[in-house]
Amino acid sequence: MIDLYTYQAPCGYKASICLEELEMPYTVKVVNIWEGEQHKEEFLQLNPNAKIPVIVDRETDEAIFESCAILLYLADKAGQLIPPSGKQRREVIQWLFFQAASIGPMLGQRMHFAFVAPEKIPYAIARYTKETDRLYNILEQRLIEKEFICDQYSIADIAHFGWLYMANQRLDNLEHFPHLTAWYDRIAARSAVAKGVTVPAPSPFI
Amino acid sequence: MIDLYTYQAPCGYKASICLEELEMPYTVKVVNIWEGEQHKEEFLQLNPNAKIPVIVDRETDEAIFESCAILLYLADKAGQLIPPSGKQRREVIQWLFFQAASIGPMLGQRMHFAFVAPEKIPYAIARYTKETDRLYNILEQRLIEKEFICDQYSIADIAHFGWLYMANQRLDNLEHFPHLTAWYDRIAARSAVAKGVTVPAPSPFI
Repeated sequence: MIDLYTYQAPCGYKASICLEELEMPYTVKVVNIWEGEQHKEEFLQLNPNAKIPVIVDRETDEAIFESCAILLYLADKAGQLIPPSGKQRREVIQWLFFQAASIGPMLGQRMHFAFVAPEKIPYAIARYTKETDRLYNILEQRLIEKEFICDQYSIADIAHFGWLYMANQRLDNLEHFPHLTAWYDRIAARSAVAKGVTVPAPSPFI
Repeated sequence: MIDLYTYQAPCGYKASICLEELEMPYTVKVVNIWEGEQHKEEFLQLNPNAKIPVIVDRETDEAIFESCAILLYLADKAGQLIPPSGKQRREVIQWLFFQAASIGPMLGQRMHFAFVAPEKIPYAIARYTKETDRLYNILEQRLIEKEFICDQYSIADIAHFGWLYMANQRLDNLEHFPHLTAWYDRIAARSAVAKGVTVPAPSPFI
């Protein structure tokens, strides 16, 4: 049994979608990040970076933070959603890092300056709009000839979907990227994905 | 033999330090990112994200981008700098993702608004100073009782050092973090690290 500490947020969705895909039993522990529960000492013991998601595997009491590390752990535990070895496995890991290092933080900055910052700063808004469009175009080009980000549906798709799901709700910005949109619709249509994005509750932005 | 496409930049240093630590023969291919060589079609074939470093393993012609994926590939190829399996391996991977998703992009934004942006934007400068100090403090707390980021010297240290090396040169901002500073000095004193940060040439900011 897995304990999943999560909230309605892009990286939380990655973990819940993955657990749903793997049909792994899990218990949801709600961490209300808008009320600051991620800064409580009990949670910081699990993740000193004060971010959801975290999982605890109750079979071993091992705790894991960083959403892409969680995806890797769960996929390896189940023997699904990532090849066990070789070049195809490395390709999935490479795209996990692309998502973690670029798509996630840059969409995060774009949304911060669009919705959270107390002042509208044209330079910052333009910077992150341009950068996320550049990143979207990398995925767009890749998806012209591919159904999924790697050769098969994998945790690389789940990792990207978490952020794109939130971005698409709030920014409505996929329209200029038809192959990325088609990929998005393919992923969104999966029943495990549809269920995963309702954990721990439906998004407040739908 | 490994071909290393790199330049004087934080993520480039990660790869060259790792190759030096592993005493793996490699050929340096200089990609002058200040002259835009990363946008040339030949390089985009290796990394559609137009970023150094990239490696090509000439034994197999496999190309890998994303610096942390490169570290993982090289460490696994050599059977060093990361445990082969188990919880300790997963811990290294978790901290690689922490570096990739937080330390790297947030120091990148801090340096952008400090040195590159054509206007000084107090809100953005304050935002990224506060966030990188928060991240530094996570490492500081971890290093109170540990010599390295994980149980042994690993690619997690190398990943963090790449960015902290550049940040420390340009921001001089480690002074309030004594354990992080001691770790930095320990890593910097390694001969492979001292050599790695001169690839392909000494930093222009020393």
